[in-house]
Amino acid sequence: MNCIFFNGIVLTMNSANTVIREGCVVVEDDRIVDVGKYSELKYKYHGYERFDCENKIIMPPLINCHTHASMTLLRGYADDLPLFEWLTKWIFPVEKTLTPEDIYLGTKLAVVESALSGVSCLNTMYYFMDKEAEAISQAGLRGVVGHVCFSNNKKQDRSITFNLVRKWHNSKNGLIRVTVDPHSIYTVDPVYLKELHELKKDLNDKFGSPTAPIKWHIHTAETADELVKMRESFGSSENPEIKKLVDENYDGVFDYLNHLNVLDDQIIAAHCVHLTDKDISLIREKSISVVHNPVSNLKLASGISPLPKLLSNNINVSLGTDGPCSNNSLDMFETVKITALLHKGVSLNPTVLPATEVIKMATINAAKTLGWDSEIGSIEKGKKADLLIIDLSKPHANPLYNEFSQLVYALKSSDVDSLIVNGRFIVEEKTVRTVNVEETITKVAKWVSDRFPDKSINS
Amino acid sequence: MNCIFFNGIVLTMNSANTVIREGCVVVEDDRIVDVGKYSELKYKYHGYERFDCENKIIMPPLINCHTHASMTLLRGYADDLPLFEWLTKWIFPVEKTLTPEDIYLGTKLAVVESALSGVSCLNTMYYFMDKEAEAISQAGLRGVVGHVCFSNNKKQDRSITFNLVRKWHNSKNGLIRVTVDPHSIYTVDPVYLKELHELKKDLNDKFGSPTAPIKWHIHTAETADELVKMRESFGSSENPEIKKLVDENYDGVFDYLNHLNVLDDQIIAAHCVHLTDKDISLIREKSISVVHNPVSNLKLASGISPLPKLLSNNINVSLGTDGPCSNNSLDMFETVKITALLHKGVSLNPTVLPATEVIKMATINAAKTLGWDSEIGSIEKGKKADLLIIDLSKPHANPLYNEFSQLVYALKSSDVDSLIVNGRFIVEEKTVRTVNVEETITKVAKWVSDRFPDKSINS
Repeated sequence: MNCIFFNGIVLTMNSANTVIREGCVVVEDDRIVDVGKYSELKYKYHGYERFDCENKIIMPPLINCHTHASMTLLRGYADDLPLFEWLTKWIFPVEKTLTPEDIYLGTKLAVVESALSGVSCLNTMYYFMDKEAEAISQAGLRGVVGHVCFSNNKKQDRSITFNLVRKWHNSKNGLIRVTVDPHSIYTVDPVYLKELHELKKDLNDKFGSPTAPIKWHIHTAETADELVKMRESFGSSENPEIKKLVDENYDGVFDYLNHLNVLDDQIIAAHCVHLTDKDISLIREKSISVVHNPVSNLKLASGISPLPKLLSNNINVSLGTDGPCSNNSLDMFETVKITALLHKGVSLNPTVLPATEVIKMATINAAKTLGWDSEIGSIEKGKKADLLIIDLSKPHANPLYNEFSQLVYALKSSDVDSLIVNGRFIVEEKTVRTVNVEETITKVAKWVSDRFPDKSINS
Repeated sequence: MNCIFFNGIVLTMNSANTVIREGCVVVEDDRIVDVGKYSELKYKYHGYERFDCENKIIMPPLINCHTHASMTLLRGYADDLPLFEWLTKWIFPVEKTLTPEDIYLGTKLAVVESALSGVSCLNTMYYFMDKEAEAISQAGLRGVVGHVCFSNNKKQDRSITFNLVRKWHNSKNGLIRVTVDPHSIYTVDPVYLKELHELKKDLNDKFGSPTAPIKWHIHTAETADELVKMRESFGSSENPEIKKLVDENYDGVFDYLNHLNVLDDQIIAAHCVHLTDKDISLIREKSISVVHNPVSNLKLASGISPLPKLLSNNINVSLGTDGPCSNNSLDMFETVKITALLHKGVSLNPTVLPATEVIKMATINAAKTLGWDSEIGSIEKGKKADLLIIDLSKPHANPLYNEFSQLVYALKSSDVDSLIVNGRFIVEEKTVRTVNVEETITKVAKWVSDRFPDKSINS
């Protein structure tokens, strides 16, 4: 596809945060080949299909850096419950029964919802990730997929992860990448954490590269009691090495992980709600990327991450929705707004998390988080042709004074007009072009009625 | 208009919170005449136009209990600034220049945005409220309007308010009502507060009724320092009565107001962020209605209202967006979600503010706040035909397990299909039928470019 998106307001999200009004972006196949003022470029590219983006924003798509995509099947299944009851009575029992076909179906729904709301890439952790990768790549979106590893599944995890990487990392025209996913410190014992660290290094040597690294994706410090839960899980281990490591005192989750020598700059640390000063120093020193998931953190009452402090420590922070049954949408516009609002209110400072900063978090910071910033996250010559076109015609989008402010505080996912990923239209004029949406929704409804004949379970 | 909305999921929001699946609502002119299962009612109303609401929710519309509607003109005009600078450098200078025609135009935009997002009624406080009332009622929406009163405008306020009530209270087929609006305790001196209390009583005697009362609408305890600011404003008054009242010690904003004998059950208290225990007791004892505005409270870093505590004291709490330049939308779906999320996270309790409770706040509690619950706020026989029809077909709206949960955590303003107010279609199939939307947006854009030739003011 050779085309020019012209006359839009181009938010490049490059390092200078260049904004080009009456701008244009030129695409050849799957790459951006030119960006600039339309008046300067319009005569250079004859024969290219032209898309008039007047009264539209052209920006990098949003990236969801932490989710469990196929959990769309459980959207609204159980809410407003104490955490332990929610997990043990409602979520875990269903999760045990999910099949690869279920995962494929749930991910299809996630992909459709994500694309319609301007998200080009999902960083997702769950089971049967082969199926998540299949659904994501078939739809033409990008995905970073990881098989979630638990101590009680050691034997299988290793081979599953290896096969996932071998089959999917940097595959499908570069759409899919893979991570190694230790669930958390209280579900993965310290010896296994070290093994998964070695596995990551090993897989990187074999299948990764500097521009397509294989990272860890792990839940860290989501609740205040992770070290306590860690000791409850593994404190009575018969393995003396585990017992020794668990019994020591640690000044925070990252202090513990550092003691295990598993910290490096190839880690995606989701949540980071309850951090000690030591944790923050380590995150900074080791160049760990943090994924902030405010909607889930609030909904599950996990707490509020010290985001301003992380940013003032020059830590790379990006955003995620977490799973669609603790949100319950995959809406990154909503996540962006809530991020911008929450920390102002909590810190009693209306200047923190200004609009531009939050848009960075959802775009270029996210690409850096995933180790994908050489190719995506900003609109720059040579990068992949991933573009989000946003319609500015609706009443709530007017008047327009400042594009970043409007994106954060007024525009919504429903303002997404088109989404291009790898030079291909995924959404065009608000319609998904790569997935049969009606069929997906119908199948999901059927899945619910088959699995839960009494549909209103907890009304 | 005689019609039946059938086969929808009817959320009545009545006192039993009755939900009727495959339900229907029968409308004659401007009233609801029947509600029930469609199978039981379908043969009773021949000749009535039928609207198939399969795969749709039918519920009372959302009500925005605190806003400054015409400030849409300043949406995104200035953000992420320290409060004092935002107000004094950016907002106040523009506000001084606003004309009645500007107010009319801004309100038209507000009305269009509100209707499209499922809001039937705005409780709005500003200047030139004659024009706000005109724009709201012409569009067919409901409005509660009040002229904002300040000590430095005493002479005019009284007559403006009187005329506003006389012309507009309970007018336009019952669409418009009026309030008496002392801005706050730090902008209205205590003697004037007492006068405005008397004015309210006087106007109620002349123009109000038990089912259409004239209330106060006042900002209360939005920031922590209102009593301090009150003393700064009026502490050096030459009026000995003012000085005496200001100089005393008070245990909270409501304690102060109670001392002035201005508290009663006809008060709409917006914000209520910083409350003492004494305040909460008084709010409860006097049956004052509180309007919670979480988006604005966060954005302006005012703080977080102790909402769970208010609810556990059986205080009537409803929701508002505040003005569209401290939000920056008028989106009540968003406000509902943020309300449900915020207090879970802040109180570290995932069971507070369950979905049903928050929907009550946006509907029937809101009607009670405005003294309008004999006519609106729930779908019940005899009440006014105000209906919100919500489309459940989009990907993010599926699967559906629990309607209240879906409304709060997954559905969005863009899912609004139709809005009926007083038996009239305001929005039908996602299109506004009573206002020329394109023309409004064009006029607003022209207003901005005329008023601010250098459009990107603070990019």
